[in-house]
Amino acid sequence: MTDPAGARPGEVALGFDPGQRADAALAFIGTIASPWSPGNCPKNLREARALGGAFSLTLRPAYRAGLQGLAVGDRVIVLYWTGAARRDLIVQAPAHRPGPTGVFALRSPARPNPVALAVVRITALDAGAGRLGLDAIDAFDGTPVLDLKPFLPSVDLPPDPA
Amino acid sequence: MTDPAGARPGEVALGFDPGQRADAALAFIGTIASPWSPGNCPKNLREARALGGAFSLTLRPAYRAGLQGLAVGDRVIVLYWTGAARRDLIVQAPAHRPGPTGVFALRSPARPNPVALAVVRITALDAGAGRLGLDAIDAFDGTPVLDLKPFLPSVDLPPDPA
Repeated sequence: MTDPAGARPGEVALGFDPGQRADAALAFIGTIASPWSPGNCPKNLREARALGGAFSLTLRPAYRAGLQGLAVGDRVIVLYWTGAARRDLIVQAPAHRPGPTGVFALRSPARPNPVALAVVRITALDAGAGRLGLDAIDAFDGTPVLDLKPFLPSVDLPPDPA
Repeated sequence: MTDPAGARPGEVALGFDPGQRADAALAFIGTIASPWSPGNCPKNLREARALGGAFSLTLRPAYRAGLQGLAVGDRVIVLYWTGAARRDLIVQAPAHRPGPTGVFALRSPARPNPVALAVVRITALDAGAGRLGLDAIDAFDGTPVLDLKPFLPSVDLPPDPA
């Protein structure tokens, strides 16, 4: 592991691309629509929610039957793919941090398996069209969707701090 | 889409295996150690936490530098792979539900992209060995790990219900 060309001081790259390991394969099941592009994307979901806008996702036809049981107002966890970022930066030096930090202590989209998650509320639902309105999301327009899960307070709220 | 052989009444299968679509590839970065096997696995994280036991995960050597910045007591989101389950059951009929339900309204391990998540607390940390103790997890012993992320209340607590 050495400092990769083009990285910031203190950053560390793996000597390989995790995307080439292919231990398992993902299917893109749909696409996010948002106002965000690389030039204007909020830095996290809180900021996306504060800025507001039109947010939705549309599932591919084969997967639409899987929406049965969801309703407007439900809170869901959206898993989405941020795979445009490099996957080998195991230690990163974001501008907002005092020093280099391990990727597993960061929410950077650049990570070995670039699967991001957002806990959001369903604001509209057209099951036939496979389209869900969302209260907010911090992903670029066109981002691939991997999964939706119901948010369950009984398991998804964090345990008490130590 | 037809009822697949061996499925419960009302279940619906895709006409294909999402695992064969391979829109993106995952690298397994480590392995979970737990008391759970197919014979005794709790049905969710709450039940795993109530039952208790020894829970940990170990990262492969290349990824261990990514732990820098995490500490005992921190709460993290673990993403793990439940890929032993079938991926084509888009409508499922779990015993605890009154009727068939879409996979996206369920936390079933059988889903098009079998990426599960657990919000847990770090109880021990040996960064050199890549080993984290966890307060609980509901995955089988030997389950592949995909990612760790810091739990951030500012973005990961759900929005208010509608």
